Amino acid sequence: MQKIGAQTIKFDAPPTILDTACIVGPKEADGPLCKYFDKCLEDEFWGEKTWEKAESKIIKETVNSVIAKSGISSDKIDFCFAGDLLNQCISSSFGLRESNIPFFGIFGACSTFVEALCLGSIFVEGGAANYTLCAASSHFCSAEKQFRFPLELGNQRPPSAQWTVTGAGAAILSKSGTGPYITHITPGKIVDMGIKDANNMGAAMAPAALDTLLTHFKDTGRNPSYYDGIFTGDLGHIGKEILIEMAQTEGYNIKSNYNDCGVLIFDKEKQDTHSGGSGCACCASVFSGFLFNQLKNKKLNKILLIATGALTNSTTNQQGETIPGIAHAVSIEM
Amino acid sequence: MQKIGAQTIKFDAPPTILDTACIVGPKEADGPLCKYFDKCLEDEFWGEKTWEKAESKIIKETVNSVIAKSGISSDKIDFCFAGDLLNQCISSSFGLRESNIPFFGIFGACSTFVEALCLGSIFVEGGAANYTLCAASSHFCSAEKQFRFPLELGNQRPPSAQWTVTGAGAAILSKSGTGPYITHITPGKIVDMGIKDANNMGAAMAPAALDTLLTHFKDTGRNPSYYDGIFTGDLGHIGKEILIEMAQTEGYNIKSNYNDCGVLIFDKEKQDTHSGGSGCACCASVFSGFLFNQLKNKKLNKILLIATGALTNSTTNQQGETIPGIAHAVSIEM
Repeated sequence: MQKIGAQTIKFDAPPTILDTACIVGPKEADGPLCKYFDKCLEDEFWGEKTWEKAESKIIKETVNSVIAKSGISSDKIDFCFAGDLLNQCISSSFGLRESNIPFFGIFGACSTFVEALCLGSIFVEGGAANYTLCAASSHFCSAEKQFRFPLELGNQRPPSAQWTVTGAGAAILSKSGTGPYITHITPGKIVDMGIKDANNMGAAMAPAALDTLLTHFKDTGRNPSYYDGIFTGDLGHIGKEILIEMAQTEGYNIKSNYNDCGVLIFDKEKQDTHSGGSGCACCASVFSGFLFNQLKNKKLNKILLIATGALTNSTTNQQGETIPGIAHAVSIEM
Repeated sequence: MQKIGAQTIKFDAPPTILDTACIVGPKEADGPLCKYFDKCLEDEFWGEKTWEKAESKIIKETVNSVIAKSGISSDKIDFCFAGDLLNQCISSSFGLRESNIPFFGIFGACSTFVEALCLGSIFVEGGAANYTLCAASSHFCSAEKQFRFPLELGNQRPPSAQWTVTGAGAAILSKSGTGPYITHITPGKIVDMGIKDANNMGAAMAPAALDTLLTHFKDTGRNPSYYDGIFTGDLGHIGKEILIEMAQTEGYNIKSNYNDCGVLIFDKEKQDTHSGGSGCACCASVFSGFLFNQLKNKKLNKILLIATGALTNSTTNQQGETIPGIAHAVSIEM
C-alpha cells in the first residue's frame, strides 16, 4: 500500500469484500430496499427484554450470518472491527463476546462501518490478516432513549430530524477473491462548523463529508464522474442538499451520480421519517444489502462510500457544545 | 509483518515509539510516579467549567505536548488513534477536533491506549503512515458521575473499587528511529467469566489479561522470563493477585517480574485508593511517563504491556448483565 496525497491510502493488492450480511427492523422492512436485506424483524425487541439486548442480538446474528454466507469458518477470521452508538459500544461488545475473534472496538458514530472497512482493509493488505470482519449496528429505540427523549413521551420530531435505522451490517474482507475490491481509503478529519442543533445532524455532518470528498478527489486526481455512484452514509435529505450545494461551490458537480443511504432506505412521503435514516446501521445495512448486490451484479462498478458521523453526546449538547462531524471514505470497484 | 500463532503480529521493521507525553491530575501528582509525568494539574477542572471539558483539555494538551516534544510537525502525522471512557468518546473527539489529523476513534475501555498502539503500529509497519499518534484519557470525576454515582453524594467505596486516573497519555510512532520498538502485538478477544460486580473491575478483567498473556507466550514461544517487566493496565491490587494465581495454575510464574500500572500509580496506604488506579489514562500515563523513561534509560529493555478493559456501561449493569473484559498486548524492546 502507499499513501497518496494528503490522507488517502491506495492498495497495491486491493482486499476483496468476500460477502456481506444485514438484518433490519420492521420500519426498514417497509422501505424501498426491503428485498435486499437478509432478514427483516417483525418487532423491535426480537424476543429480548430490552432494546439494548435486542440490538446486541441483531449485530450478533448479522455477524453469524455473514460468516455462514462467506463459507469461512470463524476461527479463520483473524480480527474483528466493530462499533455502535450505545454508550461504551455495548451493542458490539455484548453481541460479539462469544465470537472468539480478536476484537478492536471502534467508535466513529454513524461513520463506524466505513471506519471498520478502512481498518480491516489495512490489516488484510498489510499482511496482518487473511480475513477481517467489519460490523456496525444501531437501534431506533435504544438511540432515541439515550440521545433524545424517552420514546414513551411521544415527542414531536422536527422536519430536520432523522430516523435511526434499527439493524446491523457486516462484511468479511479477504486477501484474495473476485471482488468487489476496496482500492482506496480516505480516512477523515474531525470537522466542526459550529452547528448546535441535535435535530439537524445532516447539516452538522455535511461539512465533514465535503472535506473528505474533496480530499479524496485531490489525492486521487479523480473527479465525480469517475464513479458510477457516490453514496454518503446518513446525511439525509437536508444534508444531501447541503453537500450537493457545497460541492458545487468548490467546482464539483455531484448531482447526477450522488445519493445518500439515509435517503435511500426510507420512503419519505409514506414513512414519516422526515429527513431520512441515520445511525451506524444506515450505511452498514444499505451497503451490505443494496449496494453490495448492485456491485456483485455489475449494475454499479465503481462506487465511493463516504460514511459520516456526528461525534457528540447528550452531555455535550447540554453543555452548549457544537457538533463535530467526521467522514471516512472507501473506494470500491468490481 | 506476519501473523504468528493464533493472534500475534510480528513486525519485520518494528516501529519506534518516537516520544510520549502525559498530563495527570492532583491525586496522581501525589503518587509515587509524580516525577515522571510531564505536567501535574492543581485541580480537576484546569480552568474549565465542567469535568468533561477539563478531560478534553487534558487530552488536547497532552497531544500538543507529545507533538512539541517529538519535533514532528502535526501536518506530518498521518493518522491519529484515540479514545476514552466518556459516552461516545467525546473527550477525544472534542479534545482533538482542532488537531487537523485524520482521526480513528476507538473504544477498548481501559485498554484503549494499547489498542491505539496496536493500530498505529500496523499502519506504520504496513506502509500506510510514516507517523501515527496514539492517545487516551480518563477523568475521575467525569467517570464516577457517568458510571457510578454523583460525586456530591460522597458514596462510600468498597475495598475492591478502583480509582479512575485523571489524565492522558500520548505517543507518536515512527517508521524509523532509535527505539523503543514495538516488535509484536497480541490483540485480545472478549472474555466474559460472569463477574457482575461493577466495583470489582480487576476481577472482571483478569481472565482477559490471562487469555492474552497465555496467547502471547504460546504465539511467540516466549516465557515470562524473556521480559524485564510485564505490566498490566489497571487490574489493581485484587486483579493483579488473581492474574498471578491464574497464570501459576497455567504453568507460568510471573510473580518476580510482573506489576500493574494501577498498583504503581497510587500509594495504597496513604492515598485511600483501595484496589488501585484504573481508567484509560492509568496505563496511558504510567507508560508515557514512567515506563517510557525506564526504556529510554535502559533500566528496562524488554517489556510486555497488556492493557485491560471492562466493556460495560451503567445500563448493562442495571439490566443484570455480566462484565466482559478484553486485553491487548504490545511487546516493546530497546
